[in-house]
Amino acid sequence: MEANKQITNEKPNATQTYTFAYSPDELKLESGEKLGPITLAYETYGKLNPEKSNALLVVHALTGDSHAAGTNGWWENLIGPGKGIDTNKYFVICSNVIGGCKGSTGPSSTNPKTGKPYGLSFPLIGIGDMVEAQKRLIDHLGVEKLMSVVGGSMGGMQVLQWMVSYPYKIRSAIPIATTLNHTPQQIAFNEVGRQAVMADPDWKNGDYYGHCPPAKGLAVARMIGHITYMSDTSMTEKFGRKTRVDKEPFKFAADFEVEGYLRYRGDNFVKRFDANSYLYLTKAIDNFNLLNGHNLGNVFKGLRAKVLVIAFKSDWLYPAYQSQETVKACKLAGIEASYCELNSTYGHDSFLLETEQETKLLGDFLKTVENGGKHT
Amino acid sequence: MEANKQITNEKPNATQTYTFAYSPDELKLESGEKLGPITLAYETYGKLNPEKSNALLVVHALTGDSHAAGTNGWWENLIGPGKGIDTNKYFVICSNVIGGCKGSTGPSSTNPKTGKPYGLSFPLIGIGDMVEAQKRLIDHLGVEKLMSVVGGSMGGMQVLQWMVSYPYKIRSAIPIATTLNHTPQQIAFNEVGRQAVMADPDWKNGDYYGHCPPAKGLAVARMIGHITYMSDTSMTEKFGRKTRVDKEPFKFAADFEVEGYLRYRGDNFVKRFDANSYLYLTKAIDNFNLLNGHNLGNVFKGLRAKVLVIAFKSDWLYPAYQSQETVKACKLAGIEASYCELNSTYGHDSFLLETEQETKLLGDFLKTVENGGKHT
Repeated sequence: MEANKQITNEKPNATQTYTFAYSPDELKLESGEKLGPITLAYETYGKLNPEKSNALLVVHALTGDSHAAGTNGWWENLIGPGKGIDTNKYFVICSNVIGGCKGSTGPSSTNPKTGKPYGLSFPLIGIGDMVEAQKRLIDHLGVEKLMSVVGGSMGGMQVLQWMVSYPYKIRSAIPIATTLNHTPQQIAFNEVGRQAVMADPDWKNGDYYGHCPPAKGLAVARMIGHITYMSDTSMTEKFGRKTRVDKEPFKFAADFEVEGYLRYRGDNFVKRFDANSYLYLTKAIDNFNLLNGHNLGNVFKGLRAKVLVIAFKSDWLYPAYQSQETVKACKLAGIEASYCELNSTYGHDSFLLETEQETKLLGDFLKTVENGGKHT
Repeated sequence: MEANKQITNEKPNATQTYTFAYSPDELKLESGEKLGPITLAYETYGKLNPEKSNALLVVHALTGDSHAAGTNGWWENLIGPGKGIDTNKYFVICSNVIGGCKGSTGPSSTNPKTGKPYGLSFPLIGIGDMVEAQKRLIDHLGVEKLMSVVGGSMGGMQVLQWMVSYPYKIRSAIPIATTLNHTPQQIAFNEVGRQAVMADPDWKNGDYYGHCPPAKGLAVARMIGHITYMSDTSMTEKFGRKTRVDKEPFKFAADFEVEGYLRYRGDNFVKRFDANSYLYLTKAIDNFNLLNGHNLGNVFKGLRAKVLVIAFKSDWLYPAYQSQETVKACKLAGIEASYCELNSTYGHDSFLLETEQETKLLGDFLKTVENGGKHT
């Protein structure tokens, strides 16, 4: 079951790829289907120390990618020299998830068996499959044990999955603004997004590559998402009832600034994201369920990592009570878990935007892990 | 400016219509445009007493109609003989709003100037225009002063508008789960619904009558609406993470019960509602703004009616703080206003579903109005 192909671009801190296949078979997925070969696009920041004890895995949310740090990195305020996740001290790895569309194998990739894009022939993937692929990547990079794995939202689910799948491979974990499983409300918002994509005639049952993508449907899905990522308060502070100065002479034009903003974000998203990836990844998070048949006290049984759980008071998409449940599961398993609920008003987006508070929290937490690490 | 045409169906308690036109001009709308003739579809329940002092106007929400009471009436548990709004005592009137599609003049009506459905040539209408038309209807029915006007959500906005437009025409008012104006979050949810409709190629810029309506887009809009009408708690109680037994062998089928429910509600809605009406009515509530340039204390200046404001703790679409602002505006204007925040877990839908608590509240409140009325 070893990787038999390792590739390619070795320019440091730029996107690199690692392609692996299993011999004799492809990777068996949670669904029972198989997939391979698998390419992961990843970036690294900082240097792995000789003891290989300073590696952190950063995992991204629904529409993120491997470009976590550096210019326009989605967590550039948090990761870098002297920052909360200090790349002068730590070796940071971030890879695009499988199922994604930012360089890793996903529905828009070419199916080697047909020479055409997978489309809907791509198998359903789960959070566990994303983590399985990440595990191969850190093996490939020579990291035996991660100092920490950290991420928010869908990234947080991957963190929780690491705590379950590879408890002996991590010294600490930081799940942010996430949950052990989705409520029906969370599933419902994703389902409406999927319906919006699939209602677009350009979607063509997923077989739109080389043609016009389902841009209108995907834009609507993204607009729904954006509302859920913000809070009532943050929207009121940002837009109020301000109307647009450049409004068009059309009855249903974007009269209010909030409407213009949502349309802009929706239209922009279409240029950078694949509609089928949106379907596959939202389905992966809806299906994610660490409580499936488990007693809460058994979820993290056997884990000996330190855990820092972070939630945000204004986050109504992943409400704080879900993070508190994670903390409870840790405590029941005898794990050293800290919980921090931040007052940010940004809603779910806080995990991306409230980097000043996160800097302090993560910086301090990682120092305790670092010190603990020296004595193990 | 008198109505010059009065019509037609006089069967009691069934839908009747009242058509009126203004002479020499049509009704001047809030937008400055004109509309006429206007037909209102309405129902009445109970009997108007000889003093004509027992008439209540019930006003409906976004997708409601004039059929408030009787079998399958949208408030059948609240309105009827011996019920909270007791038709043994009161004469209840409910009409479909203009802009709607349930018998009153709206975008699907025939434009008398062209002989074709209005479509987007229908003028933008506001909550004030709905109330103006209702005022003509109660004049037509010989009611000089309403004992009360009552409604939830968009119905609540009409109640608030009555308090402003015709303070001397009402003895009491009961605005439920509503607001003086929409926040950007409320506008945003409506805007995404409109975008979903307009993204459907079958919408054809509103000119789809006689052809296939934009069913998929409208279904998506309705699904978004449904999520916002429920609460996290009520969805969890109703669906949990239960999966469907009859799920289809399709990757993005409705696996979870909540998904099946939303699709069902979306598809069903399309059969009973006009997509253009959805656009016009959501725009009317987004544009509604009783605070526009007003000091809160001046909004209800001059009103002498008794007011009962009702909100629901689990309603996150029209959060209680918005109802509290209405109460504050009443108090600042020296109005006798009561406020009740109910514990129902149904979310915004509580105003339709929590009829047991509403029965008690409204019954008692109306008795005090009734008694007060005898002495005026």
